[in-house]
Amino acid sequence: LAGPELTSPRSARVSAARRLAKRAFRARERLFLAEGPQAVREALSADGVVTELFVAPEAGERYADLVEAARASGARISTATDGVIAALTQTVTPPGLIAVCRFVDVPLTSAVDASPRLLTVLANVRDPGNAGTVIRTADAAGSDGVVLADASVDPYNAKCVRATAGSLFHLPVVAGAPFVDVVAAAGAAGLQVLAADGAGEDDLDALIDDGTLAAPTAWVFGNEAWGLPEELRAQCDRVVRVPIHGQAESLNLATAAAVCLYASARAQRR
Amino acid sequence: LAGPELTSPRSARVSAARRLAKRAFRARERLFLAEGPQAVREALSADGVVTELFVAPEAGERYADLVEAARASGARISTATDGVIAALTQTVTPPGLIAVCRFVDVPLTSAVDASPRLLTVLANVRDPGNAGTVIRTADAAGSDGVVLADASVDPYNAKCVRATAGSLFHLPVVAGAPFVDVVAAAGAAGLQVLAADGAGEDDLDALIDDGTLAAPTAWVFGNEAWGLPEELRAQCDRVVRVPIHGQAESLNLATAAAVCLYASARAQRR
Repeated sequence: LAGPELTSPRSARVSAARRLAKRAFRARERLFLAEGPQAVREALSADGVVTELFVAPEAGERYADLVEAARASGARISTATDGVIAALTQTVTPPGLIAVCRFVDVPLTSAVDASPRLLTVLANVRDPGNAGTVIRTADAAGSDGVVLADASVDPYNAKCVRATAGSLFHLPVVAGAPFVDVVAAAGAAGLQVLAADGAGEDDLDALIDDGTLAAPTAWVFGNEAWGLPEELRAQCDRVVRVPIHGQAESLNLATAAAVCLYASARAQRR
Repeated sequence: LAGPELTSPRSARVSAARRLAKRAFRARERLFLAEGPQAVREALSADGVVTELFVAPEAGERYADLVEAARASGARISTATDGVIAALTQTVTPPGLIAVCRFVDVPLTSAVDASPRLLTVLANVRDPGNAGTVIRTADAAGSDGVVLADASVDPYNAKCVRATAGSLFHLPVVAGAPFVDVVAAAGAAGLQVLAADGAGEDDLDALIDDGTLAAPTAWVFGNEAWGLPEELRAQCDRVVRVPIHGQAESLNLATAAAVCLYASARAQRR
């Protein structure tokens, strides 16, 4: 048996992939890295996304089906040492499989033209783990798309990709749309725009009870630390608070999004 | 004006506090550290919890009310340099205020004897950030207590304390109870025991519709990676899945807990 093809983290091909850890290089190449068997499997299930697969020896045996699927899809298969794989990731436990993927985000118009009933909008969410968890939660709740508006984190950040647990490849994701355009497009598509905010005038339970949540909705979630500034809240149809029954001051971003999105999913599907 | 009293991270008092980063030392002293103004404020609102407050110069001015409250409660006030404060924490941005706190956990019996209607049980949850976020979410949803069962993470781990955002001081927390005892105590207190699991036979929405969720409930959430093993699930009354409407394989632990606990809160409060 021949050993791995790539043995040096400094080789040209490995260096090119390593540069994708930086946002500027990702934006230039329109490529990013998806790590680990789950993300690679989901990336492969999206047509024409994976351009190259880096595979460590043990992972190549264990996930032979994924390597074969990648090969069949026309992706380049690059066998690599554990050291090379480790150089491509910041995780403590190197994942064994890393795919170079084409960007999957779509324009705002295409996300909104598809008659969405449940849209998820992140406004200036900066933590990649939070953004990724919301993308995963939005997918689970049946959201028709996620928009990362204004200065939100890059969805192709490695931590964000990991936190989506594959959902980045499941639903339309819009990156970098101006918030004002998102609100206008959602309104034109017949969606009510609800902002989640601890100081909202409307109580989530009341909007379930009065039927408001059954209507097509774009949910807006703000920055994890400072929430939604007044100028963004003013553009939304309503500002909604998740009720706090105990003494907590607030919920964190991803858990508030889970409660709101699942409340809408239930109201819309009854 | 006199400078800070503590200037060396190696002084005996600072070293004693630093050791509380380790679980064994926390367990021996029954003391832990709470960092930052929010956690310190919540700790001070709980009677007799704070024994000592380390304060950096700038934070001492900015949070003079907290320093005064700590002094009034009889806590020792230790002014310290930024370097000393930085030595007491693993956070990138040192918090300026760090309180030495007495353990606040309660025995299982006291949490269950108070006729809880909504109990949150973590079984072998290992990630401190996840556990802390669930404690915060449980507080927000009005849960009457949180039980960290079997090999769950220590709630006094610094990352867990941070993720609770003060909720550790708001509701009864039980640490290290055997799962079998938790189920027995919950049953004896008249609570149904519902395990959340992606492969559950019962759908959460169905249990809302048929009124099951209105009854007093202990919700059980398993390990973030491997879920609930069969021998634990078998001890629960029902195994409940949060519906997945999209293509996501699952929700993460804290978001699943948010959906389940808020569903119960709404059902119980109607």
